[in-house]
Amino acid sequence: MGALTLRLTSLTSIFAASSSVRPSLLRRRSRPLSLPIRRPLVSNLSAQSTAAEKDAAPEIAGNQKARVSEQAITPRSQDFNAWYLDVIASAELADYGPVRGTMFIPYSFIEKEASHVEGFSPELALVTVGGGKELEEKLVVRPTSETIVNHMFTQWIHSYRDLPLMINQWANVTRWEMRTKPFVRTLEFLWQEGHTAHATSEEAEEEALQMIDIYTKFAYEQAAIPVITGRKSRVETFAGASKTYTIEAMMGDRKALQAGTSHNLGQNFSRAFATQFTDENGQRQHVWQTSWAVSTRFIGGIIMTHGDDAGLMLPPKMAPVQVVIVPIWKKADEKAGVLNAASSVKDVLHVAGIKVKIDDSDQRTPGWKFNFWEMKGVPLRIEIGPRDVSSGSVVISRRDVPGKQGKVFGISMDASVLVAYVKDKLDEIQLSLLAKATAFRDSNIVDVTSYDELKEAISQGKWARGPWSASDEEELKVKEETGATIRCFPFEQPKGEKTCLMTGNPAAEVALFAKSY
Amino acid sequence: MGALTLRLTSLTSIFAASSSVRPSLLRRRSRPLSLPIRRPLVSNLSAQSTAAEKDAAPEIAGNQKARVSEQAITPRSQDFNAWYLDVIASAELADYGPVRGTMFIPYSFIEKEASHVEGFSPELALVTVGGGKELEEKLVVRPTSETIVNHMFTQWIHSYRDLPLMINQWANVTRWEMRTKPFVRTLEFLWQEGHTAHATSEEAEEEALQMIDIYTKFAYEQAAIPVITGRKSRVETFAGASKTYTIEAMMGDRKALQAGTSHNLGQNFSRAFATQFTDENGQRQHVWQTSWAVSTRFIGGIIMTHGDDAGLMLPPKMAPVQVVIVPIWKKADEKAGVLNAASSVKDVLHVAGIKVKIDDSDQRTPGWKFNFWEMKGVPLRIEIGPRDVSSGSVVISRRDVPGKQGKVFGISMDASVLVAYVKDKLDEIQLSLLAKATAFRDSNIVDVTSYDELKEAISQGKWARGPWSASDEEELKVKEETGATIRCFPFEQPKGEKTCLMTGNPAAEVALFAKSY
Repeated sequence: MGALTLRLTSLTSIFAASSSVRPSLLRRRSRPLSLPIRRPLVSNLSAQSTAAEKDAAPEIAGNQKARVSEQAITPRSQDFNAWYLDVIASAELADYGPVRGTMFIPYSFIEKEASHVEGFSPELALVTVGGGKELEEKLVVRPTSETIVNHMFTQWIHSYRDLPLMINQWANVTRWEMRTKPFVRTLEFLWQEGHTAHATSEEAEEEALQMIDIYTKFAYEQAAIPVITGRKSRVETFAGASKTYTIEAMMGDRKALQAGTSHNLGQNFSRAFATQFTDENGQRQHVWQTSWAVSTRFIGGIIMTHGDDAGLMLPPKMAPVQVVIVPIWKKADEKAGVLNAASSVKDVLHVAGIKVKIDDSDQRTPGWKFNFWEMKGVPLRIEIGPRDVSSGSVVISRRDVPGKQGKVFGISMDASVLVAYVKDKLDEIQLSLLAKATAFRDSNIVDVTSYDELKEAISQGKWARGPWSASDEEELKVKEETGATIRCFPFEQPKGEKTCLMTGNPAAEVALFAKSY
Repeated sequence: MGALTLRLTSLTSIFAASSSVRPSLLRRRSRPLSLPIRRPLVSNLSAQSTAAEKDAAPEIAGNQKARVSEQAITPRSQDFNAWYLDVIASAELADYGPVRGTMFIPYSFIEKEASHVEGFSPELALVTVGGGKELEEKLVVRPTSETIVNHMFTQWIHSYRDLPLMINQWANVTRWEMRTKPFVRTLEFLWQEGHTAHATSEEAEEEALQMIDIYTKFAYEQAAIPVITGRKSRVETFAGASKTYTIEAMMGDRKALQAGTSHNLGQNFSRAFATQFTDENGQRQHVWQTSWAVSTRFIGGIIMTHGDDAGLMLPPKMAPVQVVIVPIWKKADEKAGVLNAASSVKDVLHVAGIKVKIDDSDQRTPGWKFNFWEMKGVPLRIEIGPRDVSSGSVVISRRDVPGKQGKVFGISMDASVLVAYVKDKLDEIQLSLLAKATAFRDSNIVDVTSYDELKEAISQGKWARGPWSASDEEELKVKEETGATIRCFPFEQPKGEKTCLMTGNPAAEVALFAKSY
């Protein structure tokens, strides 16, 4: 998904038959706090260098060989199996997890953090039989990995020198949802989940905020989705978090979609799992943590933000095909010339880095192809017929501007002209989709000062924004009576004094209420 | 993993609350049989174009609008939810699978193909509780996906025009192994699994062979592993396959590693699942199928083929860091100059497309860094000290040639000289690793003509190659008595008449026996 980089899930967990230790492939990396994570971590092997950076960090000043000798590798000729396990441990290709199979989490882990188990227990899938035998301890197909991450962190974190620590994995997770919807709410879904540990509360807060900023940028700049970023209410905070930050997107039906979250976990998990470090004064302290994720749900968000009655409409920056070329001919003797020209145009665009496809099938009419590729959401269509070949030009149609209005004739096939035109149009479409979605969003948010106004806005299908300092109970009452929840307290707040729309008491912030997916 | 392209697993399965249909994200694509699959299919969205190619194929000649109207999309304003589901179906972003959550397979599916259930039932992880409730039907955490693929194929394949059909997914699978070993045999592992359906037996056979060829090329050209490619014996054939092709690699301890397989499934699954198509004569026929996979096990193969007592040794084409630069200084006033030069060298190599890393940490000695990066398997090390800065040259060391022999002084920092030298050395190392592994392999394969010779070879830890036409029972006897199994009947066969080493009967082929992982 665009600027976000992929990391394959931690995938393997193993134990030597005669041993009680079990490696998993959770990779670790540390980084300066101020850098956004942009570097790709696609394969396990490619994560080595970053894990290595950590090891190259100071550990025992004045005794630089200590760590290396700790990692001494059994000679291959002496014991091949021991050599193999030593290499894997020394090169940090794998570590030992609590269950054979890191997809699974021991049920007891889930129970350790009180609000976590409360939040997730209705949604768990439990493996009770393995290899034909009833298991002694039920295993949970991971719904999220805070528990297992903390288990590993207790082994990886010793002193303040090991902090900050960050891992990120792309993993499938499972939540036994009763009501599902493609991409938006599914029983199994793919996500990126990041986890960090810090020495101070301030650092964790900074990290949580930085990640929600990165998600916000991704939404605006890549997906052309004008999310509203803010903090969740206590009621809506993640099970086990101290604070949850969120990006909220308005779908075409004006329902809100929570498109990504970043949690400041405080010390909730580190206390439950005893994830501690020795600080600079030699004192043992619990680490401060964050976690954050976006998932395949984002695909649903893109569909429901930009799509129209003709089908998908993809922002150019995320479209796997940015330009489709449809060659048009009627008589057999026109075909070769048209296909030749189409092919040259394709090459020209391809070389310029544009994702282009040619649909030269004999089997469908041009009209069918037009509809088909519009349905697929391709941002630009180039039509080339015999007359265009003669004139050395093409016809270009925009997906986001239907009919003749979006159609321009006589664009020169000349490489420099054509490439510049296409790039320009793709940029224009990207911005136009964002502008359109922003206008739609803004025209559907109503500022309210009373509960009656809120109810009125929600009943019209709109979002209501108003000052809020009322209780959790009152928030739940709003949900019950209107179906709307607090989506967030937006970071961008109006200035001036505010009065709670529910209680009339002073309020520090406005909250955003909406019905949601 | 190098030339092989990644495809994220099919990840989502869903159902509308009021409906009994359930979409999954298995993507389909068809392709001309003769083309190898090289095109990346990283994200679900990026798979659209290929799925589209299929839809652009002939279906109802002379009625070109038919398909489009079949896919009519509900107007957004009329019913947003219906519109959303229609767009997803029309654009082929998801389809409906048998279980909410395509990670899971209904237990009854596994039971449909007799040898498949027999082969896999001892290794299954069963989910029996979901969302707090005992499930009516146990679900299997997928050990492989032939069953679920066939279920989908029955819905996607109607006539010969839908064939050949190929899908590929990267997915985690689970097998409840009793003895595990990192990367090589793990309870949960990541693999690429491809599945195809064909109109004829010949096409399926051609496909199965083509895929084992691709794996062979990958092993030789990317991983520098000189696998031996061949056909499995009946005893060793995949549960449910008619024929299994394999690439067998010799590890450093001379045990065999099955590094990839390609199965001609015949009609075994299509008969069990009634996966049928209407042929050109209007007759219903069962499809012919293949499946093929390589997994994270390959990582274990790379470690155990090339690694030595100093740690990992990565083939340059697969190394995430191909060159590490270690700047060396003693006095503070040397530091800036050395780091400057190191940084320029890094930039020069980076621009030339070489994967380069600089280790400029203050905290470790150069000697520590040398050991560390050797352990990480980095093919080339560049050392830059104050004297090198003065002379405008660097020192380059090869990972695969230890000590002074692998060290060359005075390579010019001049961009054109340095880049050419480094590229040349990386190529040389790649070839050298393959040559070394090949020599090792060949010196450890013994041609045998009798069972006694076979036993002798195996007891020496070698592989035995000899003519074989004996029974399955005799093959199992060899395993029991020697611990060796038939790894394959190699494609490359010696010429001339052969006599079975066990029975003295004529034999058509030699088989390769070895102990294995």
